[in-house]
Amino acid sequence: MSQQKNYHMSPDEFRRHGYAVIDWLANYYEHVEEFPVLSAVQPGEIRAQLPPSPPEQGEPFAQILGDVDSIIMPGITHWQSPNFFAYFPANSSGPSVLGDLLSSGLAVQGMLWSTSPACTELETHVMDWMADMLDLPGHFKSSGSGGGVIQDSASSATLTAILAARERATNFASNEHGLSQRLVAYSSSQTHSSLEKGLLIAGIGRENMRKIEVDETFAMRPEALQAQIERDLAAGLLPFFVCGTVGTTSSAAVDPLPEIGQICREYGLWFHIDAAMYGTAAICPEFRYINNGVELADSYSFNPHKWMFTNFDLNCFFVADRAALIKTLSILPEYLRNQATESGAVFDYRDWQIPLGRRFRALKLWFVIRHYGVQGLQYHIRRHIELAQQFSQWVDESSLFERLAPATLTTICFRANPPGIQNEATLDKLNEELMNAVNATGKVFLTHTKLNGKFTLRLAVGSIRTEAEHIEAAWQLLQAGLVKLIGRK
Amino acid sequence: MSQQKNYHMSPDEFRRHGYAVIDWLANYYEHVEEFPVLSAVQPGEIRAQLPPSPPEQGEPFAQILGDVDSIIMPGITHWQSPNFFAYFPANSSGPSVLGDLLSSGLAVQGMLWSTSPACTELETHVMDWMADMLDLPGHFKSSGSGGGVIQDSASSATLTAILAARERATNFASNEHGLSQRLVAYSSSQTHSSLEKGLLIAGIGRENMRKIEVDETFAMRPEALQAQIERDLAAGLLPFFVCGTVGTTSSAAVDPLPEIGQICREYGLWFHIDAAMYGTAAICPEFRYINNGVELADSYSFNPHKWMFTNFDLNCFFVADRAALIKTLSILPEYLRNQATESGAVFDYRDWQIPLGRRFRALKLWFVIRHYGVQGLQYHIRRHIELAQQFSQWVDESSLFERLAPATLTTICFRANPPGIQNEATLDKLNEELMNAVNATGKVFLTHTKLNGKFTLRLAVGSIRTEAEHIEAAWQLLQAGLVKLIGRK
Repeated sequence: MSQQKNYHMSPDEFRRHGYAVIDWLANYYEHVEEFPVLSAVQPGEIRAQLPPSPPEQGEPFAQILGDVDSIIMPGITHWQSPNFFAYFPANSSGPSVLGDLLSSGLAVQGMLWSTSPACTELETHVMDWMADMLDLPGHFKSSGSGGGVIQDSASSATLTAILAARERATNFASNEHGLSQRLVAYSSSQTHSSLEKGLLIAGIGRENMRKIEVDETFAMRPEALQAQIERDLAAGLLPFFVCGTVGTTSSAAVDPLPEIGQICREYGLWFHIDAAMYGTAAICPEFRYINNGVELADSYSFNPHKWMFTNFDLNCFFVADRAALIKTLSILPEYLRNQATESGAVFDYRDWQIPLGRRFRALKLWFVIRHYGVQGLQYHIRRHIELAQQFSQWVDESSLFERLAPATLTTICFRANPPGIQNEATLDKLNEELMNAVNATGKVFLTHTKLNGKFTLRLAVGSIRTEAEHIEAAWQLLQAGLVKLIGRK
Repeated sequence: MSQQKNYHMSPDEFRRHGYAVIDWLANYYEHVEEFPVLSAVQPGEIRAQLPPSPPEQGEPFAQILGDVDSIIMPGITHWQSPNFFAYFPANSSGPSVLGDLLSSGLAVQGMLWSTSPACTELETHVMDWMADMLDLPGHFKSSGSGGGVIQDSASSATLTAILAARERATNFASNEHGLSQRLVAYSSSQTHSSLEKGLLIAGIGRENMRKIEVDETFAMRPEALQAQIERDLAAGLLPFFVCGTVGTTSSAAVDPLPEIGQICREYGLWFHIDAAMYGTAAICPEFRYINNGVELADSYSFNPHKWMFTNFDLNCFFVADRAALIKTLSILPEYLRNQATESGAVFDYRDWQIPLGRRFRALKLWFVIRHYGVQGLQYHIRRHIELAQQFSQWVDESSLFERLAPATLTTICFRANPPGIQNEATLDKLNEELMNAVNATGKVFLTHTKLNGKFTLRLAVGSIRTEAEHIEAAWQLLQAGLVKLIGRK
């Protein structure tokens, strides 16, 4: 039968245009350092260049790709630049991008085992690999009582943990009758905002979230946690969930997991560990101490899409008891029934996450682990930590700058504090100006936080392209920027 | 400064391996029809071929890609096959895959406008294009009171709508104090299971979900909706949310949106429209009637990753009042503060969705719209509808088969009902056997549902590769399979 007329890209065209996009990216990687790290466009500037209406007729691919260069690129902030030190590293690497490309092209749905068995089984397998690579306890593996699943983000992992905890605490009555008790959740004051968002989504309410005070390292004070739980119990409330963090967003603090875990055991609370940022470090035996206490956790998550060279989205979420999770999130309508599910012999990962649909994300994680090997990953993790520690040492040795938090692993919190300025408001203003000045050069991008009320600069190391020269250049730029601001020449 | 030792894939290696993956996919597209559509592996078969431990040393890329062929492919169910008629179409097309490849490679975070302005502005722009392409009312555009945002799935869009509705109904008290009132949500008995899941996540509870009865076309009865709302009000409950569907999962029924919308206005309920499956049809003026009543909706979502040739994940979610959505989901910690956000001149899409992080998904939608043009999209949508209607006609003309629901657009619900079988249980068994028999050939993949208690086969048309010959072959296969089962030769 003759082929119908069609507008689809033929396999030959796909090959040709695909090569062009691969070339475009290879070229981008070769020159990424030359772009201003932080986009300088003004609001509305990108949109103003786009036609008000979609095209009636299709356009040549070369023209579309050309517009990426001329219209889109000026509005890109280059997260892949070796000089990107803002927020957190959000890496992409060759093997990850190519694994993701296969996933986009195969375009299978992994909602059920039966909708593409390899999608589920490879995911279970690499998640068990990851558990071993981090040296997590056996109950987090599929061969134990729990298992791992890929989520889109740590936000979703936290929300998923909150929901399973909510149902466990209410004996699944919330799912059945709606939430009616006042449940209380706990974290440190430094915990990521996604915890609050997750609690609001789950109907817990902001006033039932306790932000426990931290010590001088910005880590949760366990005795304050216990005292607050006691107060809430005395008030007739139902404590149900504690989130401990391995590498807080602001200052990379590590909460005292063993002590928190013991308290959770004592009071029967769900203990979730958010290791989004620093979990990757546990691939190296010498940094595995950051996870001490994980054996007491009900759930644990970390983001290969931050520091494990895997492009967004890829969060690894582990639970100790998969039955509680599945019972919380499983709904089985007729149109999803199938023999494999009924047999009970398979995982259906839709029951481990918020949405129904899911990409074949395990491919990119598998590609990354196999391309680098465990030793390759360890090498780069150690290198990043060395570079950040070098920067920290420069700050410590400087009379113009000071460190504002322990230099844990790869995130350095610091500020300019030149002699002669006593006023905190003046220092805040100086540091904000310094940050804006160095960012405006396009040579580096740093962001800030506040620690103990102080405007704090952050240098977060972790790009796959960052080498000693980039750390040195950032340090030079900060020093020169400060000297210019305070008028010392 | 000399380059450090590293294990990363160099740009040249990326170019070489990237070409190999592009070739692999082009070859896959050329031969996708030759694979058995439904994977025949048994549980555990894929995992058994994977090494128990991750490699210590990195492996050559060719070896990894080789394992995709030898280990992964037998476990793939081919959603891109022209003979995939199961569940729903989940398309991937050349321009979409290449747009997604750019997104993976650039790997920018779009959580804030400032983290990559082009990511936000292109998204706002193509969502406005989409609103125009579907002829949605102006208040769903960014120039009006609302706007569009890309979500990962219709599940997440529905959950997001539920949350905004919950907060609007409780005057934002749920976010503040936790959910304490008994809120009630409504949908038809045919609504997708993601609504129930969303309601459970939001703390509403299963018993506060009303599944309204449907008419003979499987569309919601508005008078039954109104009666139920009245009963719930009389019982002191708080009705807050109605979900109408454009193309139900089982039978592609379209709920009477104008009548439902009027009822929502009258009682002040949030009206969400889930057009996940059929929204795409509205790109053609002659099918726009499916959205009649959308002007009364508070939110609307459809999935280009189903039937608009865009690979997962890409759901378009529109709201009429963005302020309610943003107020529901916005949390602004210090480390995310920036000048653009404070100015109020930009959208920060993290406040429009569940997670914080987000991919640059607008690229693939932009690529699809520009590659096909509006006319190219219309051509293929019309063609798919023609093909499905042809199949429906064959069923109607057959003495061995019967249709079990209106043949709306591209999903045909039918069953074998040969003369002489009166017993419904026997018919159910016969149809289940027929489905398993045709699926076992590997030449086609169909799934089932139940309508009025009857085991119902579904043929869902929408793959970019499906042509008349594939529909004909499926029909031949079903007829031959039935004849074999009932012993008529």
